[in-house]
Amino acid sequence: MVTSKTLSTPDLLARLAAIVGPRHVLTDPADTHSYLREWRDLFMGEAQAIVRPGSVDEVMRLMAFANEYAIPVVPQGGNTGLVGAQIPVGLPNAILVSLTRLDTVRAVDPVGNTITLDAGVILQKVQEEADAVDRLFPLSLGAQGSCVIGGNLSTNAGGIAVLAYGNTRDLTLGLEVVLPDGRLWNGLSQLRKDNTGYDLKSLFIGAEGTLGIITGAVLKLFPKPRSQAAAYIGLASPHDALQLLSLVKDKTGSQLTTFEIIPRLLLDFALKHLPAARDPMQSPYPWYVLAEISSSAPDGAAPLLETCLAEAFEGGLIGDAALSTSLEQRNSFFRLREEMSGVQKREGGSIKHDVSVPVHKVADFLDRAIAAVEAFSPGCRPVPFGHLGDGNIHFNVSQPIGADSQAFLAHWDAMNEVVHAIAVEMGGSISAEHGIGRLKRALLPGVKDPVALAMMRQIKQALDPKGILNPGVIL
Amino acid sequence: MVTSKTLSTPDLLARLAAIVGPRHVLTDPADTHSYLREWRDLFMGEAQAIVRPGSVDEVMRLMAFANEYAIPVVPQGGNTGLVGAQIPVGLPNAILVSLTRLDTVRAVDPVGNTITLDAGVILQKVQEEADAVDRLFPLSLGAQGSCVIGGNLSTNAGGIAVLAYGNTRDLTLGLEVVLPDGRLWNGLSQLRKDNTGYDLKSLFIGAEGTLGIITGAVLKLFPKPRSQAAAYIGLASPHDALQLLSLVKDKTGSQLTTFEIIPRLLLDFALKHLPAARDPMQSPYPWYVLAEISSSAPDGAAPLLETCLAEAFEGGLIGDAALSTSLEQRNSFFRLREEMSGVQKREGGSIKHDVSVPVHKVADFLDRAIAAVEAFSPGCRPVPFGHLGDGNIHFNVSQPIGADSQAFLAHWDAMNEVVHAIAVEMGGSISAEHGIGRLKRALLPGVKDPVALAMMRQIKQALDPKGILNPGVIL
Repeated sequence: MVTSKTLSTPDLLARLAAIVGPRHVLTDPADTHSYLREWRDLFMGEAQAIVRPGSVDEVMRLMAFANEYAIPVVPQGGNTGLVGAQIPVGLPNAILVSLTRLDTVRAVDPVGNTITLDAGVILQKVQEEADAVDRLFPLSLGAQGSCVIGGNLSTNAGGIAVLAYGNTRDLTLGLEVVLPDGRLWNGLSQLRKDNTGYDLKSLFIGAEGTLGIITGAVLKLFPKPRSQAAAYIGLASPHDALQLLSLVKDKTGSQLTTFEIIPRLLLDFALKHLPAARDPMQSPYPWYVLAEISSSAPDGAAPLLETCLAEAFEGGLIGDAALSTSLEQRNSFFRLREEMSGVQKREGGSIKHDVSVPVHKVADFLDRAIAAVEAFSPGCRPVPFGHLGDGNIHFNVSQPIGADSQAFLAHWDAMNEVVHAIAVEMGGSISAEHGIGRLKRALLPGVKDPVALAMMRQIKQALDPKGILNPGVIL
Repeated sequence: MVTSKTLSTPDLLARLAAIVGPRHVLTDPADTHSYLREWRDLFMGEAQAIVRPGSVDEVMRLMAFANEYAIPVVPQGGNTGLVGAQIPVGLPNAILVSLTRLDTVRAVDPVGNTITLDAGVILQKVQEEADAVDRLFPLSLGAQGSCVIGGNLSTNAGGIAVLAYGNTRDLTLGLEVVLPDGRLWNGLSQLRKDNTGYDLKSLFIGAEGTLGIITGAVLKLFPKPRSQAAAYIGLASPHDALQLLSLVKDKTGSQLTTFEIIPRLLLDFALKHLPAARDPMQSPYPWYVLAEISSSAPDGAAPLLETCLAEAFEGGLIGDAALSTSLEQRNSFFRLREEMSGVQKREGGSIKHDVSVPVHKVADFLDRAIAAVEAFSPGCRPVPFGHLGDGNIHFNVSQPIGADSQAFLAHWDAMNEVVHAIAVEMGGSISAEHGIGRLKRALLPGVKDPVALAMMRQIKQALDPKGILNPGVIL
């Protein structure tokens, strides 16, 4: 990267203020701290300024300016990302562009089943807007109250409804993107089918802000299910859970909308630390599945789920199941599932993995990975959980009871290596839904096909020749 | 493009023969004719040779050789494409690489719900392989008996099940691609979730052989529906058809797997020219919809479809409906739909369009486009039909009765302009599922966002700097 021109800090700040207004250029540490700090304290960044553009035009002018002076730019949405892509680590010259002021829902179209919106709209707001017109926006994840759709797009976010509705990429019809040189790509298509050239949309989704700044999108809406039925299901092993998955999919097809796995120990964590948490069943089971059926028939879901569970029970696949009998109970089931991520920190240090393997290999993966980390760190407590139906496990490992948390966390990279090696050997991925960011950048060359990596570099070079967009992320 | 080295024809043929074997280098016009001719006689190509590699390694060696001498390469699958991308028009120096010998199904995995296969496997064979293990591969289109999966991937083929299952891109988990310089990208992933960098897979799908030669793929399989019910539905207008679509989608969600529209005149064509064709109803209607519901319950589909139709009938949305009462009748319904493309040539010249608009705008589009072509060419007979559920209409126009067919076809480009202008003004596409190829290349700059076009050129330049792969296609 060659910086062809330089600019003094006062000049830079004046130029930024001329674009977004002085109120929206932040430099005081009291103001910038919340933008530069990752919420788990894994990443702390630096920047010349935080800028908060209030329009797409301002984003274009910011990028044109940054391009002229080859200033690194780090885009940020709700700052909930888990791999540090939104934090300018080691980039004291960078400007951080926060998209949160771009928070307008531009259009909701229940007839065309689309919503068109700014990148800074909070995910939960999208869900609510859809709900208000009797439609469903299915993307759903723990951070939905604070993450924004631009970040969901840039990380191709997953969540708990991928099984039936796909990742964020699958939910997107069109994009609006400001390119590294300030040009605007208007790709806000509402089309379900369009074969006029390369799939640029899919390229920007999941690019973690390294190819362009997503400023707007057209997302798909769906008919709202007319009935839903959820159950916590107690069973002996992930192998049984996989068999249950096959059985339920065969009987329900695309009506199976959630299939999550949780180990007993993680439920114990929740019961211990969360006053509101309740054991969904009377007896404990080694493993649990949270499954949900959605139906377009007003009374379709519960009987369908009951039929599946009855057959599974008769076949000895499951031990017991608690069915939700009300919307309130259904919501409490899902709240309990959502707590599974946060509750781990109450048990000390936790080393995390976001791996996927082909769905039918998840149980074998768990057998191997649990044994491997127990051998690697005797006394450690594996609490793998998550999206079994997609083959995506958050293979998290809590520290041994009473151990020193920092000493345990010092093994982060080494334990990652143990777990990732097993996933990769099974045809898996070291980042199923969180992305690469800064956290896993150094790991990528070890696990990615070298030709794929070379092509990614060629594309980055072609679209961002000065390398100013989110340097140090992914590549 | 700079040809750095040259090679005499005998030397070239000897080099090709050394790679694929002399039997698989075709130069005799009697042998090459069927590869160089497009089936509707819209395109006729030239080439130094047709080569038929028998392995991925041979494809790699062919591309490395072509790259060394900057020889243009045109990949070809089943030669059923509709936009000429598979024909080396005006490329006398080209070699045409036919992928049809790469026809091995590498693995069928009913547990993991995947099929891994060579690019030259015929689509119908993929459907049959899935069926044999009680799974569904949903891609279904008229040419399925002769098109191959590599071509389906390169054109992101659509067809009659897109509504529920998506385009070919949505059905693909992994790809294997030989790059312009002969390197192999092994992206044969079986993962449902993988966020480790840019979405290269989506880039090659729909690139019409301009970025790489797809040699293999991992495709998704689905649980087979346990019941299906189809109906021909007679109604007054596309506006009513759209309302019917909303009603059925609301009541059936993702269980609505087909929703096609057909005008009476096109049914008349079929009844006149096809001895086996039967009018599905006793009285004629101005428009017809072919709808199908698929259910995971053994007796789920028919009652669901009947409920929808009863409500539509009561609401005055539809005039009559013929329900399939047997698999044989269901298949005859779909055969009749498949004939709608071929039967047009029996009525003389036909000017074709493959447009899409946002789904809820299809009826308005049809009103405007029908009026416009009737004004443009008095006496012409519009027979727009196709995938209403995806917003994709094959807006075809048959010549006036008794008119000179060549004189009518001379207006092809001018009529395209009329129809495409309306589609684009409504936020639509001039190629919903067939691609750009050579046929619509000149039209692209007039309808595509210029920034998108510039990015496509940058990506092409980055991945194929010598411009040897399918020159003249798309860009």
